[in-house]
Amino acid sequence: MLSRIDHVGIACRDLEAKIAFYESTFGLTVASIEVNEAQGVREAMLQVGEGAAGSSYVQLLEPLGPDTPVGRFLERRGEGVHHVGYGVADITAALAAIGATGVRLIDERPRHGSMGASIAFLHPADVGGVLTELVQAADR
Amino acid sequence: MLSRIDHVGIACRDLEAKIAFYESTFGLTVASIEVNEAQGVREAMLQVGEGAAGSSYVQLLEPLGPDTPVGRFLERRGEGVHHVGYGVADITAALAAIGATGVRLIDERPRHGSMGASIAFLHPADVGGVLTELVQAADR
Repeated sequence: MLSRIDHVGIACRDLEAKIAFYESTFGLTVASIEVNEAQGVREAMLQVGEGAAGSSYVQLLEPLGPDTPVGRFLERRGEGVHHVGYGVADITAALAAIGATGVRLIDERPRHGSMGASIAFLHPADVGGVLTELVQAADR
Repeated sequence: MLSRIDHVGIACRDLEAKIAFYESTFGLTVASIEVNEAQGVREAMLQVGEGAAGSSYVQLLEPLGPDTPVGRFLERRGEGVHHVGYGVADITAALAAIGATGVRLIDERPRHGSMGASIAFLHPADVGGVLTELVQAADR
């Protein structure tokens, strides 16, 4: 069902500083920078390799304010890995199959993610403490 | 420098239960299960897609005891993402280049990782709170 690790979402306080760090230290390049008002974040996608099922990314997330999911995460845990996103070919089918196993869906229906993707989150308490995201890339 | 997301390392309390969960919920399959005495863990690699630069994996980590890095992580943070591993073609060259930028290396020289890989960790405090691992796969 999962075709690849689409991205690792990393919470940070200063998006521009963290982009510059990943560029200069690891040689990554920015594929997109977007504001997602619905999720309360400004996010950058930095490409890390490319596979048959699509590319993988480091996703850097800066909260738009303290009272947002990523803002609260930073307050509680500090900077670090916020979630893991996996590629799927058909997000609606994947949500139905996963929901049928008893895992709670944060998003019953897909919503808008980075770079035109359709995304949905699964409840971390049902996935061993990992906030897990499904990603159907826009070009599929 | 980074060719792919090699794996996401996830700390768990019961390796067999978590393997069964990832198999039944997400359809992943186990590529290897190993004990790494030096790191104090039993670890399973579950394949998630395959790219030109190699495969990606979910790495499930169960500590061999409470007084190990993953055991202390579980005590402090609970189950969840422990680290992120990125593929590199030449780990010795990558360590030299990254060390030269000022990022502290937990491992000055590569050591043994899953599936015959050579691995090295970078200090999370210098990588925005992310315990970051470099992985040179055995078949490269």
